[in-house]
Amino acid sequence: MASSIGGSGTGSSVNERKLHRDLSTDSYTRLYLSPVPSVEDDENNESDHENERILSSVDQDDSGEEVEFVSMTPGTATTVTIVDPNRGGSSPSTNQYDEEVTDVAYVVRKHYENFETIDWLKDLMRNRIRHRSLRAHRRDGWRQRFTFWFDAWSGWICVLLVGISAGLVAGFVDIGAKWMSHWRTGVCTPAFWLNREQCCWGSRDVEFDNVHSELCKHWKTWSEIFGMNELSVSAWFFRYFMFIFWSVIYATFIVCLVVGSAPYASGSGIPEIKTILSGFIMYGYLGKWTFFIKSIGMIFATSSGLIVGKEGPFVHISCCCGNLFSKLFPKYGHNEARKREILSAAAATGVSVAFGAPIGGILFGLEEISYYFPYKTLWRTFFCCMVGALVVRIINPYGNGHEIQFPVEYNVPWATFEVVPFICLGILGGLWGTVFIKTNIRWLKYKKTSLIGQYPRAEVIILTLITAIICYPNLYLRLTMPELIRRLVGQCGVDDHMDLCDYERDQPIGTATTKLYAAIAGPGIHRAIWQLFWALIVQTILIVFTIGTKIPSGLIIPSISIGAIAGRLIGIITEQIAYQHQHLAILRHECGVSNEHCVTPGLYAVVGACAFLGGVSRTTVSLVVIMSEVTGGLSYIVPLMVTALAAKWVGDTFGEGIYEENVKLSGYPYLENRESFRFTLKAGEAVRANRSDETIPLACMIQDGMTIAQIDKLLHRYPHSIYPVIINEDFPCIVGQIQRRDLLAVLKSRKTQLTQVKLKPSLNRKFSVVSMSSLLNKSGQPSSFGMRRASLALQSSKVLKLHKLVDRAPIIVTDQTPMEAVVDMFRKLGCRQIFVTKNGHLHGMLTRKDIIRLMHEANISKKLEH
Amino acid sequence: MASSIGGSGTGSSVNERKLHRDLSTDSYTRLYLSPVPSVEDDENNESDHENERILSSVDQDDSGEEVEFVSMTPGTATTVTIVDPNRGGSSPSTNQYDEEVTDVAYVVRKHYENFETIDWLKDLMRNRIRHRSLRAHRRDGWRQRFTFWFDAWSGWICVLLVGISAGLVAGFVDIGAKWMSHWRTGVCTPAFWLNREQCCWGSRDVEFDNVHSELCKHWKTWSEIFGMNELSVSAWFFRYFMFIFWSVIYATFIVCLVVGSAPYASGSGIPEIKTILSGFIMYGYLGKWTFFIKSIGMIFATSSGLIVGKEGPFVHISCCCGNLFSKLFPKYGHNEARKREILSAAAATGVSVAFGAPIGGILFGLEEISYYFPYKTLWRTFFCCMVGALVVRIINPYGNGHEIQFPVEYNVPWATFEVVPFICLGILGGLWGTVFIKTNIRWLKYKKTSLIGQYPRAEVIILTLITAIICYPNLYLRLTMPELIRRLVGQCGVDDHMDLCDYERDQPIGTATTKLYAAIAGPGIHRAIWQLFWALIVQTILIVFTIGTKIPSGLIIPSISIGAIAGRLIGIITEQIAYQHQHLAILRHECGVSNEHCVTPGLYAVVGACAFLGGVSRTTVSLVVIMSEVTGGLSYIVPLMVTALAAKWVGDTFGEGIYEENVKLSGYPYLENRESFRFTLKAGEAVRANRSDETIPLACMIQDGMTIAQIDKLLHRYPHSIYPVIINEDFPCIVGQIQRRDLLAVLKSRKTQLTQVKLKPSLNRKFSVVSMSSLLNKSGQPSSFGMRRASLALQSSKVLKLHKLVDRAPIIVTDQTPMEAVVDMFRKLGCRQIFVTKNGHLHGMLTRKDIIRLMHEANISKKLEH
Repeated sequence: MASSIGGSGTGSSVNERKLHRDLSTDSYTRLYLSPVPSVEDDENNESDHENERILSSVDQDDSGEEVEFVSMTPGTATTVTIVDPNRGGSSPSTNQYDEEVTDVAYVVRKHYENFETIDWLKDLMRNRIRHRSLRAHRRDGWRQRFTFWFDAWSGWICVLLVGISAGLVAGFVDIGAKWMSHWRTGVCTPAFWLNREQCCWGSRDVEFDNVHSELCKHWKTWSEIFGMNELSVSAWFFRYFMFIFWSVIYATFIVCLVVGSAPYASGSGIPEIKTILSGFIMYGYLGKWTFFIKSIGMIFATSSGLIVGKEGPFVHISCCCGNLFSKLFPKYGHNEARKREILSAAAATGVSVAFGAPIGGILFGLEEISYYFPYKTLWRTFFCCMVGALVVRIINPYGNGHEIQFPVEYNVPWATFEVVPFICLGILGGLWGTVFIKTNIRWLKYKKTSLIGQYPRAEVIILTLITAIICYPNLYLRLTMPELIRRLVGQCGVDDHMDLCDYERDQPIGTATTKLYAAIAGPGIHRAIWQLFWALIVQTILIVFTIGTKIPSGLIIPSISIGAIAGRLIGIITEQIAYQHQHLAILRHECGVSNEHCVTPGLYAVVGACAFLGGVSRTTVSLVVIMSEVTGGLSYIVPLMVTALAAKWVGDTFGEGIYEENVKLSGYPYLENRESFRFTLKAGEAVRANRSDETIPLACMIQDGMTIAQIDKLLHRYPHSIYPVIINEDFPCIVGQIQRRDLLAVLKSRKTQLTQVKLKPSLNRKFSVVSMSSLLNKSGQPSSFGMRRASLALQSSKVLKLHKLVDRAPIIVTDQTPMEAVVDMFRKLGCRQIFVTKNGHLHGMLTRKDIIRLMHEANISKKLEH
Repeated sequence: MASSIGGSGTGSSVNERKLHRDLSTDSYTRLYLSPVPSVEDDENNESDHENERILSSVDQDDSGEEVEFVSMTPGTATTVTIVDPNRGGSSPSTNQYDEEVTDVAYVVRKHYENFETIDWLKDLMRNRIRHRSLRAHRRDGWRQRFTFWFDAWSGWICVLLVGISAGLVAGFVDIGAKWMSHWRTGVCTPAFWLNREQCCWGSRDVEFDNVHSELCKHWKTWSEIFGMNELSVSAWFFRYFMFIFWSVIYATFIVCLVVGSAPYASGSGIPEIKTILSGFIMYGYLGKWTFFIKSIGMIFATSSGLIVGKEGPFVHISCCCGNLFSKLFPKYGHNEARKREILSAAAATGVSVAFGAPIGGILFGLEEISYYFPYKTLWRTFFCCMVGALVVRIINPYGNGHEIQFPVEYNVPWATFEVVPFICLGILGGLWGTVFIKTNIRWLKYKKTSLIGQYPRAEVIILTLITAIICYPNLYLRLTMPELIRRLVGQCGVDDHMDLCDYERDQPIGTATTKLYAAIAGPGIHRAIWQLFWALIVQTILIVFTIGTKIPSGLIIPSISIGAIAGRLIGIITEQIAYQHQHLAILRHECGVSNEHCVTPGLYAVVGACAFLGGVSRTTVSLVVIMSEVTGGLSYIVPLMVTALAAKWVGDTFGEGIYEENVKLSGYPYLENRESFRFTLKAGEAVRANRSDETIPLACMIQDGMTIAQIDKLLHRYPHSIYPVIINEDFPCIVGQIQRRDLLAVLKSRKTQLTQVKLKPSLNRKFSVVSMSSLLNKSGQPSSFGMRRASLALQSSKVLKLHKLVDRAPIIVTDQTPMEAVVDMFRKLGCRQIFVTKNGHLHGMLTRKDIIRLMHEANISKKLEH
């Protein structure tokens, strides 16, 4: 699409005209409507304007229909006035044609093709005009009044619906996933629809095993149900088998569903949502089918024991809700730019309901996902997240009355010297993030070209089999990841008998004191350390192969899980070191006096989770807020901040975050709005640079007039998606832009008309001239005197006026504008193309895709330079 | 400044040229250097290029000095090449002149006048070029390498320093204010430098009075020190007198200091900071003197018992730190746009350290204060806030080991039916906010015109007197506001004997249970209710008169205080209603079972604080986060969100937030970036609309050449701050823009030169031609043939080339661009002016001030419409 006017090396203005010559030297006679403005001509410039003015007013006399002047609705074509060259007066059929064409023009304008980028500026403008017209008519009657108010409130109603639905889905998925996970180990005999926790709530004989899982009479394992001796080896193997069996069943079911019916439901969806929010069109990605299968899929995928989370996919599901509900409201459903406001709110709500972290969700949306985030959207997002959080609270899927997923209950302040291990954890998180991203991306690239990529079902099934086989023997891996994280971030209470709390304490267990003193680690902890270490290795390896398979799979919870394991391990080590060196001055100063737990291993798990998630996602503020909200521990904001910063710093040294890398891998046209663009080009040079690899020159429409055949030829020869409209070839000042699909639609309808009235030869007649916007003269205002003169001119011309299709507000920069400024305009204004002028004359065009390519090239050269 | 080309009503192009005629028909002969680019000329365009090269190479021949080509550094003039018409060969004096002019041109470029708006686009561009040159030279030697790395890290170093200094000041002010407040009631006899709390820490006989203030032996009231009988009436009056005495002394001291030495130190400073961050220059506002006096002033102002807070002014103080430290780093100190990144981070840090709420600070900065917030700034702000929070933590001014100012310790979940009173509180907060803003603004307006405004010192002293007299008798008002808030948000413990906790409980006080059951209110509570009600009324009235006086005064803490009182009152009422209607189904379902406190009045105080602060400031996300962080209660995010939304909704119905209203009141050129702009104008019409009240037409510089006298005349006749450069009058295509101050500086230096060499008459000679940018033609590339031709031309012309001053990347829109899009460009790109073209020809100019005026007019017409 990128192209420029001019030849390849010498002076460009000669070539500027050469490319138009194939139009002007066309065999069809071109009606000379307005004289070429030249310097000599400047003296009698006024006569030019008169000419134009004459031209414009003629229409009325000729056709008898009302001509709307361009100045009424510039840039937003809603109607196309067609003067049929071959009809006499005003016949009833004329009107029919008009309406037909009108409709076509309108529809193509608001509808985008698949995989196209939207034009924010124009979409928002269209919305404003729509709003203005509603506003103007609002006093016409009660119906208009209602429409107006409905329209004004539709944003709030829409996000309300999105919030409610996202909250409902979140609750449903949470409850379903828990039940299905527990189903792999056993059944609640009195009521099979209860999960293990719920099953044991009612019973009085609850005991806890080494990893603090409930055991009670009501809950029967599969070996018990089949009447085997619980303690025998065969029973253990039977339970092992059932665990693997159910895992594989779940995974098989969901991978077949996804691959067969909704391929868009795989992965986390965040990179795609990012791209969509930046203005890309992907039909079906947010459809109801994807929504449905991904919701089901999340239950099955997480229950199958694979190293996947459901927080990322929730963003996708929420956006599906946003998309589906926005269709109910014309303000959003019919306007892609406005729809993205709803989608931004929905994306934030996805994170909110997934974590039960409303503020964290807003910030994650703001920091990571969203692209265009006006102030009003922030407020509406806030509302949407609040509704989602309320709904989740009412459903109460975590069953603890709070909205907090991984509650930390320790109120011990952290000691300042602990900043050192926290920074270490941050660095570790950043390194792990980098290694994970690099290996995962390499693996995905390898899969694309190798055999494995062709058997996505087999891949997932084998992966589930391996995961289940490895995980069952390890008590920590056997837990679902949220359960594991909850154990890891928890503080050891007085009555905790699990391995992680097996300290050799002096005071008798069960005394009234709620404070626990530091103690030496017992054998349980040593056992736990080795098991956790094994879990860490297993999860670290498996996640590389799991992320990117054809199932709904988020990596937030896996990252948190890996981070929490690493953090807890380091926490225990720090704790033991601190205990054994109590006499050191620094420890004495901060821990010795209070005698409480100075180093809380649970806090290290939280910090570790923050570090590893930060290493992968490279978020900062939202990460800290999410971690605070998820754990409910606000006193630990500063440690979390330190860690998040360390992780981001280390990670950014080696590469980008997982979402950015995935966007690049998929090749989406995402215009990065963070990276600074180090490039010394100017706009004029960039246009020239683009030309080198594209041989198509920039085709222009001529304002003064073109025949239909000329336009036809141009459209076929130069398949740009937009064409600049210039005054004429000798005076290539840009006056507007016109879209290819609009032109095609109108021309098609025009040809149909001509064929219908059996006057096909008139296509090539010299009278069938398409006057782009001959109404445009320098002043833009018609005068009554010119009207009459123009009426005469038109009678001989029979013009098909397309001025309504011409968008007369193109974005223009001079050729000397530095590319950084141009990139800024693309980013901030969200335009799709910018025209480059040189001393007022059209010089070339830059599209968003050109910019992305240029930035990519600049990045490569930057890397080479280093 | 706003103006347009063209006459008042008829066709404009006639007038377009008319206004230039006074230049072109000047009596000075204009040298025809490059042919007017015309259509005819296009054929031999190459020759044009030749001309240029000759032209430029001639300089070398003529003067012997190197000429830099325009294409090297477009848009960023750093040097001005001057060809002296009256010197022969290359004399040593030539160089001297060159440097002189060069310096002038450079300095004026980066320096703004006071009360000017900055040009973000150009400033950022200048920074990029600076960076690029550093980068290019970084391999030249170790010094360049160091400079490069120092430059790359200077942002981080700067925010580190800002964070540390802001944290230190916050700690200092917190400790100082507390000590001075307590000093009004008494002295710590063993160590006078301790405040009452610290004084009583060590002693064993601590008791608490009705409002939970410490009483101990070490702490002596003033009546005790003077040996009076503590319980006598005269002693009470003596204490009353001392309280008033110290309050007035404090206030007198600070108001004299502020009015006398640093008037900028008054008020909260947030409206001004907002304006400065949006790109306004106010020299001295962030100076060291303001910094110093405001820091001291905050201690005295809050200690004097006036209804003012120190959180708002902290933003100002932090920004002063940012400004002062940024001067150490050329990257920020010499670039106003980049400096605003540091200031944004500093503003956020101000809130962070004031509240001990790092995340809340970031969000407050993002939501309320900042204007231009690139992603990198977010990250750096994060770091800055973290450093500030760490420093505050180390200083530990709240003395509780946590970073939480108003800790809430209740862990009771809220019941869903409580949403109703929360919404009521929100509505109340919104209403109060509106009433407060309206009356306060009206009072400020009245003061401006009345006598009171002329005696700011007397105003503050009398206000302090009244405040002290009213407040002392009320125990709650006698507390400092932070202390009062802490009491109000606290939950009643088992051992609390203060009035607010006087419930008639059945179970004996002092039992082991930590859970308190609901109970009927005792006489203490009734007493407290009436006292709090009185306090509410007093604070509500006093705050209207206090905000806007000439002392450092924030309104965040006062709003929180008023909100907390109202919330606690409503909380107690709700609690009693709920207790007396326990049998109701809804209460039974949510409270009856657990038998714990179902309605926690302390939570209502928190929610009330959120509501009232929201009603005043109209923030949402940041408000909720700040309230959560300040209280440490993350479980109550949803109630806070509900309340904040209700407050904002109600408040926005009636008007804008306090900061926006203050910006308007002060008349700062703040381009609101939230309000949508309902306007049907197009850019061309807006230019015309502006013209009606300004009679000055748009003056243009002519590229082809103007004499010095012509320019001189133009500058005096049309005092615009920027002039467009057009090709020539007959062909007014815009090629660039040139700043008035640059032109003035160069012309002045030029005249000095001419005067020095005693050739003053040459000013008006036909040879002294100023060629703006005669090197610019359509292709911008010189050719060898043209060179020779131009060399001849130059030899006879002796041109003063100003092409280096010409910024060749102006922002251009077509006249048909809707004003909404233009406003968007102003907002998002941060440009200072936009040129409007019509069919490629210059039509007019729109400046940021025009936009602000147009928006203001649009708002008025919107109000009239309703």
